[in-house]
Amino acid sequence: MADTTFTHSPPTGRVLALCGGVGGAKLARGLNAILPNPGQLVLAVNTGDDFEHLGLTICPDLDSVLYGLAGKNDEERGWGRANETWHCMEALKEIGGADWFALGDRDLAIHIERSHLLRSGLTLGQVTARFCEQLGVPAQMIPMTNDPVRTIVKTEEGDLAFQDYFVRRRTEPKVTGIKYAGADVARPHPVLMDCLADDTLEAVIICPSNPQLSIDPILALPGVRQALRDVRAPVIVVSPLIGGRAVKGPAAKIMAELQISVDSSGIAQTYLDLLDALVIDSEDAADARHLPVPALVTPTLMRSLEDSARLASRTLAFAQSLRQDASTSSHVAAGR
Amino acid sequence: MADTTFTHSPPTGRVLALCGGVGGAKLARGLNAILPNPGQLVLAVNTGDDFEHLGLTICPDLDSVLYGLAGKNDEERGWGRANETWHCMEALKEIGGADWFALGDRDLAIHIERSHLLRSGLTLGQVTARFCEQLGVPAQMIPMTNDPVRTIVKTEEGDLAFQDYFVRRRTEPKVTGIKYAGADVARPHPVLMDCLADDTLEAVIICPSNPQLSIDPILALPGVRQALRDVRAPVIVVSPLIGGRAVKGPAAKIMAELQISVDSSGIAQTYLDLLDALVIDSEDAADARHLPVPALVTPTLMRSLEDSARLASRTLAFAQSLRQDASTSSHVAAGR
Repeated sequence: MADTTFTHSPPTGRVLALCGGVGGAKLARGLNAILPNPGQLVLAVNTGDDFEHLGLTICPDLDSVLYGLAGKNDEERGWGRANETWHCMEALKEIGGADWFALGDRDLAIHIERSHLLRSGLTLGQVTARFCEQLGVPAQMIPMTNDPVRTIVKTEEGDLAFQDYFVRRRTEPKVTGIKYAGADVARPHPVLMDCLADDTLEAVIICPSNPQLSIDPILALPGVRQALRDVRAPVIVVSPLIGGRAVKGPAAKIMAELQISVDSSGIAQTYLDLLDALVIDSEDAADARHLPVPALVTPTLMRSLEDSARLASRTLAFAQSLRQDASTSSHVAAGR
Repeated sequence: MADTTFTHSPPTGRVLALCGGVGGAKLARGLNAILPNPGQLVLAVNTGDDFEHLGLTICPDLDSVLYGLAGKNDEERGWGRANETWHCMEALKEIGGADWFALGDRDLAIHIERSHLLRSGLTLGQVTARFCEQLGVPAQMIPMTNDPVRTIVKTEEGDLAFQDYFVRRRTEPKVTGIKYAGADVARPHPVLMDCLADDTLEAVIICPSNPQLSIDPILALPGVRQALRDVRAPVIVVSPLIGGRAVKGPAAKIMAELQISVDSSGIAQTYLDLLDALVIDSEDAADARHLPVPALVTPTLMRSLEDSARLASRTLAFAQSLRQDASTSSHVAAGR
């Protein structure tokens, strides 16, 4: 797992990462692997995709990140747990239950236990902390807020609840806008705000998650966007695009539908008021010369924990270099 | 499935069976097999064992009967579903969830869907009817009541909620009494009372379930015991004992602890104010001469659907004979 990219030792202060589901979870795994001190890595996870289904509170992004960090994620499918079975879903179908949202047998445990703990009065943050502890995850994983925020996708077919858009309609309807119901009154998780006010914070990493669906809900919480503009640590966005395409999911389709340029510039534009630097894939190296901020050009496809750790390590080294050399103004290239 | 015991054709009117879990479910399967007209068999099922666990409403007896009728029960284990897996429980244990009550992956579907439908406003009877329809069960299965009744086992260690006594403490504590919390104000399911007031009802069968744990909760509901005393149809109790022992479960242990004779006389005594006849096992033939009511002596162990159908058929034929020949006063013996 060692990487030669660090010119100095790994950071000792806290690192804050904002992330959504699959892509975010992959970089989170890497960060977790190289920042093993308990609580050194703070992961603020999108909860805009959360929903109530069959009486269960389902938090897809929190679970993707947790499974990734605990080494329980399914690498091939890209979501859910490894060695999964689907016997409950089969039985649910037999008795006429809703089967449009696939819940694996192993995965069900977390939805059942979380729903039970939430009903008993725990906050989502407390439940998440308990799961991390039980699964031996050293990172401090927090939901972006303990309050309900629900992403609503405005489409040409009307407003769709996120999972209706994402799973039931398979991201087919053309997106005309996105809103985050409840975000205006939700309180950001206190640890998120504490990190952003921490002068010793080493870096803020915006993981390669869908900007509109996974990161914007976090930025929509009161005070978060301004705190990111003001934070002393460098804010580094890892682009979710490779060769102008999303590795997985509808990021590119949505950016195009919202008239955002589907390339590194579009990503930079999305975060222009708060980012200090970008990490972009080697395939997109040509984009680097037109960017408004410094860019690290490096392979960003994560097919293994080794890939994730390497990207995490290079991103943190890049953050160190930005902090140490305020004169860094152009792009930095890192070899494979 | 044909049986030579019927001297006339099978009954055409409704048959009411009261039952609990495993033993009751076995006879219910047999009755269901020989009374295939939709709604002809009415099964009033104990709900005193129901409980809330992990935020799910679990109804063990309703499920045992439903799985039996739908041919989905596990014959060997005696409870739960066939071809069951336990992946959710394994995952639940990993995250620190309660794992003392075993919930199979396939079985979980019914708890999740029922809890969801109850929260959405359906009664337990409506939920049960929906499951029967989905699984193609012709019998009309009803919970004894839509209202909550909870069996509390008084023991030398104090009062225990039923599942605490039954699963967590493995029926070890000595029983000093049993109460049915909520039974005094619960309304019996209207179909149960309608059957008991029905002059064309063919028979009331009290299935070979635990008298104190499975049948008494039904009898404790307001008006049910009196209606059973008054019902025109013969009330026939199929003894849960074979050779003075319970086939499964703590029936014999509890009867002994409550100072009830653990034999056919003890069973008769329990139901003395309402029963018209008993069905007892061939092993207990000697008991027949001391009983206060006529008894059919026949093999009662049910190891297969064929066994269940044979016992059901003989019990219904016995009921016919009781109706047709009011002078029947001593025991009737049926061969193997």
